[in-house]
Amino acid sequence: MTEKRVGQRTIALAHPPSVISFANIGGRFEGEGPLGGYFDETNDDSFFGEKTWEKAESAMQKKVLQRALDQAGLKPKDLDYIFAGDLLNQCIGSSFGLRDFGIPFYGLYGACSTMGESLSLAAMMIDGGFASKCAAMTSSHFCTAERQYRMPVPYGSQRPPTAQWTATASGCTILAREGEGPYITHITCGKIVDKGVTDANNMGAAMAPAAYDSLAAFFRDTGTGPRDYDLVITGDLGELGHAIVRDFFAKDGIDMGENFQDCGLLLYDRDKQDMHAGASGCGCSASVLNGYLLTEMRRGKWKNILFAPTGALLSPTSSFQGESVPGICHVVQISMKK
Amino acid sequence: MTEKRVGQRTIALAHPPSVISFANIGGRFEGEGPLGGYFDETNDDSFFGEKTWEKAESAMQKKVLQRALDQAGLKPKDLDYIFAGDLLNQCIGSSFGLRDFGIPFYGLYGACSTMGESLSLAAMMIDGGFASKCAAMTSSHFCTAERQYRMPVPYGSQRPPTAQWTATASGCTILAREGEGPYITHITCGKIVDKGVTDANNMGAAMAPAAYDSLAAFFRDTGTGPRDYDLVITGDLGELGHAIVRDFFAKDGIDMGENFQDCGLLLYDRDKQDMHAGASGCGCSASVLNGYLLTEMRRGKWKNILFAPTGALLSPTSSFQGESVPGICHVVQISMKK
Repeated sequence: MTEKRVGQRTIALAHPPSVISFANIGGRFEGEGPLGGYFDETNDDSFFGEKTWEKAESAMQKKVLQRALDQAGLKPKDLDYIFAGDLLNQCIGSSFGLRDFGIPFYGLYGACSTMGESLSLAAMMIDGGFASKCAAMTSSHFCTAERQYRMPVPYGSQRPPTAQWTATASGCTILAREGEGPYITHITCGKIVDKGVTDANNMGAAMAPAAYDSLAAFFRDTGTGPRDYDLVITGDLGELGHAIVRDFFAKDGIDMGENFQDCGLLLYDRDKQDMHAGASGCGCSASVLNGYLLTEMRRGKWKNILFAPTGALLSPTSSFQGESVPGICHVVQISMKK
Repeated sequence: MTEKRVGQRTIALAHPPSVISFANIGGRFEGEGPLGGYFDETNDDSFFGEKTWEKAESAMQKKVLQRALDQAGLKPKDLDYIFAGDLLNQCIGSSFGLRDFGIPFYGLYGACSTMGESLSLAAMMIDGGFASKCAAMTSSHFCTAERQYRMPVPYGSQRPPTAQWTATASGCTILAREGEGPYITHITCGKIVDKGVTDANNMGAAMAPAAYDSLAAFFRDTGTGPRDYDLVITGDLGELGHAIVRDFFAKDGIDMGENFQDCGLLLYDRDKQDMHAGASGCGCSASVLNGYLLTEMRRGKWKNILFAPTGALLSPTSSFQGESVPGICHVVQISMKK
């Protein structure tokens, strides 16, 4: 058996699976943002033609999977597995969105790190010889997340400046054993990291220690640093959380440099669109990956990136009970070279 | 690369990972039931020494993982991954229960099928060469589930005869590349199956089509039938759901025989303990597997079993919005022979 582990926590895939198709979808604000042109579809109707926002979120997953299948010329039966999850209680965005496809399904809960978790497991299932083709996907919706985690949108609650805006978006990647890239080459699985932050309106600060933990492990295991990548991009740390990670590395004498970015800081126009500390939600990193990032990798803008989405593993109940916010971050190296 | 697939949906592991340790924990009713002697620990205090039931559920996961580690003489750092999830919103039973261990974590949501899902992924990660040792676990708690899915327990709502009783229990299995068994030899991943059942008090009927779908796929792919196993055991279909699966197979001319059982029908004494249609919850199949089943396999009672826990992928919100109940079932073959 090939030893596929590098250092303590990182996997070097023996036969890096290839991205063969990807698709994304967004709402009105995502379409109006600076990455609007990288969306396959945006819809001004927050209900996406459905009667409730939860059904709208499922509709997004359904549409984005169908589009990714179509772009690869595949039928649902061609996929061996689908890995998916979302933020909704009991992950109903995924289970109702994907129930009609009849694809073997492993449901995940990784909060906003789900795109990284699903991509990791899909890649390892292919590299391990268990599958030829797998889909990895997730979604979030501003209106379902607000009423579940905070307040129903019609209440018009004020949001503090540290608050982020849950993206109404979904993204899907299809991986296969063979393809023309980009390839998934390395994976570091996150640990649950909890440094005691209790402010549920400051998720970026809560998740920053997890991002630092996983990225530092990745660099240590692979003997590389941020300068070895064209882009090191977190998921939805937002302004504050992203700065905290930069500071943590600076204390170790590591300058993260200008290639250190955050999907949550790219999705909206920070001047024209008032989204406070940036975008968040599973759909944020999923739609940025499955639009801007993979498109521009194929066009040659970047050859080698680290995709590191973070998740905050809280619930309203855990916050009501005085618990702090545990975070997690899954790191995936995506490269044009195998 | 070895072709590890058998038929359309089933994996035959090339080097079947071994169970090296297992542990379970339960509440008062589980301890008073016919399988009470197979619990490592039962506690009459439904709070397990904590201030809330949610924290009690996390405490169960923490205790059961620690016990499984101790029994194998392992430290947390010896585990490459832990796969876990639970029924609570945002799976806080797992994230808060496991945060102090510092073990790389892939969070799952498979409702009451989670023990099957976690065991499947843990086994494939080892067989695929990504890990040496992994833990698979889950939990449920009657009081957290009742107030989240139905009504707070103190309301004293009446429960219909088809209702099942969510087990207050948790179970953990540790798998490794080498060991003395039992071994995980085959895996069939479930599809989401929804036949339109809308009664949230009749989960067994809602999940039965998924159990039939996955078990039928397993038999078809492997060219075997129920008589080839010493035990074919579903997770928590309860009286009604279990009978429906038996009927489905009878229509195909397959007699499931007397070795077809359900963890939910074994956990409580059906005469002395009034639990209506049987036990349910992630902790039901997890505690029965990691007590009665694995103990008796090692003692020689059964050599070869099919463990097939089912999950109902609904939420209170999906039911309020008129949705039916999608089910899923993951099948895992556990054998004393590699």
